[in-house]
Amino acid sequence: MRATEIIEKKRDGGELSAAEIDWFIQSVTAGSLPDYQAAALLMAIYIRGMTRRETVDLTQAMARSGDQLDLHDVVPYAVDKHSSGGVGDKTSLVVLPLVAACGVPVAKMSGRGLGFSGGTLDKMESISGWNGAMSLARFKQQVVEIGLVLAGQTAELAPADGKLYALRDVTGTVSSIPLIAASIMSKKLAAGSDGIVLDVKLGRGAFMTTLDSARELATTMVNIGRDAGRDVVALLSDMNQPLGHAVGNSLEVREAIDALLGEETTPADFWAHCLEVAGHMLVLAGAAPSLEEGKRLAAAARDDGRAFEKFRQMVAAQGGDVDQVDHPDRLPHAPLSAVIESTRAGYIGEINASQIGWSCVYLGAGRAKKGDPIDLAVGMIFSRKVGDHLQVGDPLGRVYARDGESLARAVAEFKKSITYSETPVEPLPLFYGMVGGKEG
Amino acid sequence: MRATEIIEKKRDGGELSAAEIDWFIQSVTAGSLPDYQAAALLMAIYIRGMTRRETVDLTQAMARSGDQLDLHDVVPYAVDKHSSGGVGDKTSLVVLPLVAACGVPVAKMSGRGLGFSGGTLDKMESISGWNGAMSLARFKQQVVEIGLVLAGQTAELAPADGKLYALRDVTGTVSSIPLIAASIMSKKLAAGSDGIVLDVKLGRGAFMTTLDSARELATTMVNIGRDAGRDVVALLSDMNQPLGHAVGNSLEVREAIDALLGEETTPADFWAHCLEVAGHMLVLAGAAPSLEEGKRLAAAARDDGRAFEKFRQMVAAQGGDVDQVDHPDRLPHAPLSAVIESTRAGYIGEINASQIGWSCVYLGAGRAKKGDPIDLAVGMIFSRKVGDHLQVGDPLGRVYARDGESLARAVAEFKKSITYSETPVEPLPLFYGMVGGKEG
Repeated sequence: MRATEIIEKKRDGGELSAAEIDWFIQSVTAGSLPDYQAAALLMAIYIRGMTRRETVDLTQAMARSGDQLDLHDVVPYAVDKHSSGGVGDKTSLVVLPLVAACGVPVAKMSGRGLGFSGGTLDKMESISGWNGAMSLARFKQQVVEIGLVLAGQTAELAPADGKLYALRDVTGTVSSIPLIAASIMSKKLAAGSDGIVLDVKLGRGAFMTTLDSARELATTMVNIGRDAGRDVVALLSDMNQPLGHAVGNSLEVREAIDALLGEETTPADFWAHCLEVAGHMLVLAGAAPSLEEGKRLAAAARDDGRAFEKFRQMVAAQGGDVDQVDHPDRLPHAPLSAVIESTRAGYIGEINASQIGWSCVYLGAGRAKKGDPIDLAVGMIFSRKVGDHLQVGDPLGRVYARDGESLARAVAEFKKSITYSETPVEPLPLFYGMVGGKEG
Repeated sequence: MRATEIIEKKRDGGELSAAEIDWFIQSVTAGSLPDYQAAALLMAIYIRGMTRRETVDLTQAMARSGDQLDLHDVVPYAVDKHSSGGVGDKTSLVVLPLVAACGVPVAKMSGRGLGFSGGTLDKMESISGWNGAMSLARFKQQVVEIGLVLAGQTAELAPADGKLYALRDVTGTVSSIPLIAASIMSKKLAAGSDGIVLDVKLGRGAFMTTLDSARELATTMVNIGRDAGRDVVALLSDMNQPLGHAVGNSLEVREAIDALLGEETTPADFWAHCLEVAGHMLVLAGAAPSLEEGKRLAAAARDDGRAFEKFRQMVAAQGGDVDQVDHPDRLPHAPLSAVIESTRAGYIGEINASQIGWSCVYLGAGRAKKGDPIDLAVGMIFSRKVGDHLQVGDPLGRVYARDGESLARAVAEFKKSITYSETPVEPLPLFYGMVGGKEG
């Protein structure tokens, strides 16, 4: 097969065959296709798009590029969740224990944060000693023993995706719906999930900024999953303002622990979001007949302490300091902090999640590029939401920083991220809709 | 300036600024832009196109990437010609002496052949000792002394073009009109031409296969030239069948010498083509008030032997064996040849120039890739034209080969390239139109 023929076909708007897509992905994986040819094809795919069949073939070829897990020796039905990435999204830390506490074993692999979007592994590492690196055997053993495991990649899942993503990042070909969908779903397929709840975020602090583009991405991923014989449901959720109050690794772990304990300080939006995701996971796994029932079961697992206990067990099994879980004030904390107060009266019209995400990257809570070190203690707390009414001097939140200079800068950025309105503003919805659901 | 921002702008159909285009070309020239980023941008340009302003800026940036000649110390008005490449196109060998013999000095740089398209330098090297490599000083000196010089690149003209072309060749981004136009015109601008006659070929044996695409390329190049203050005329000429009879280096030199001598064996289409190009060059240079007068002057320069004498002087000045010019049967000749006869009666409906071009590459007369050695002696003679009526056994032409195997193959391919018709077929036109002309 000749690379230029495949490139020219897509360049002219043609549909690539399964064999052509396979050859492309195998050549990328083997390193035999020069980057410039892969870049030209990625740009042609970006502009010309891909049909449903091409997108499914691309995803499956990427899933086949590395290890493909089968968890059926340890779980009857492997259920997974994936968030498209956002600001303050610590959902997995609460949802996974909720689902596991309802008797549905959860064996999940997570990633690290990049740009304004945080990562579950980074957040969990706020707990001293906690370790997400383990063998596949250990990963399976833990899910058998306690019904919950949270790891980094224990196997080489979809290595073609890593290579293509690195190239897309530097060639202006990231924001293509078929390429994003294939990137996410190839790893989910390779991880052996039977059912997947996708949390597709949209708004200023998400990769998809409009409802139309989020729905298109959601539909594409649901189609890929279905054509590969998996159950997939995609929720379209808001990411115009941060989810919950906390943004920053140890701050988010603390907020998650509060939610698992049912503390009344738990942000309502965050808890409602967790219940929705957990409810869908329980439905997919067959543990609840309806979403309402799934949410009821998940809430009950929090109310009687089972979910918190499951989280505690997972932390202990993975070497984490359970004392910090029991006393979250012992989690890493920043040396400096400042309360932010409202300087005017009015309604909050906007809390710019993207700006906040990047401010937290500059504070040190996130990475501008892969491999950058992060500061687990720093971040921001936003205790108000769009639509809230404020008087002058009302507390808006708090900034946590390592030094005075970054504190001053973050305080200014915190303030700049908020827009006021003199007239009442509707609160933002949590969800805008959903796509897919359990088949058959 | 960030590469990904420029790539994304063109990807989304935006118009690049002169500064962005400059940065791109300077980075390509310096080797500081990774190939994968250049490839992604080239594909975006291929699909999204470029405005007239962008194309002119791109061409001028490429022209500025290396040496820029000024020939005004040796010629009052530098007139040049360029062919977009075809099969049997030995026009320069006849046109340049015609124009020089009319008193318009010609200092031309030519290239080598690639693929089905031959190159003037290769053809001239059929003459023993002839050398197109020389210093710029020698190049200028010869045009002063005898009014005609034909060289390879004596200076580093538009090096960005060479780098971009190599990348376009392997990334499916060759056949883009703005990129082709910029590639051709950047070298013409850098070579210091005041007036340029472009021979834009169209048909089966040309890069442009349709009249519309050829006209678009011609218009784009004329616009580039005008916006850069040059006089440009572009002729749209036929390349469905070979030009003249001979295809192959020494065979074409012999046909060119016959044309300069006014031999009655000179193919009518070839001579008419040469007169048209020469006439336009004389008009641009101010040596003739009209095309008709230009053609008359050129024909007169052949009739009284001045043009042949000019060719002879040029060969001698560049070390070539004048004896071969005086006795063309002493040019390299192939050990084997075969006459091809018509196997049926009828009209010639088609002579597939592309197929013939590639058959001659396989025979050894051309290069499949840059740097391949070529065989100066081999090739084909097609003595018939589309529309000619044949009886069984009429001679069609002759194949010249190095060995029996390639002879047999070429004979089969010669025959396959001809399509017969039972009903009369119109001869092909020589020209389909023209674009541009002298300004003011």
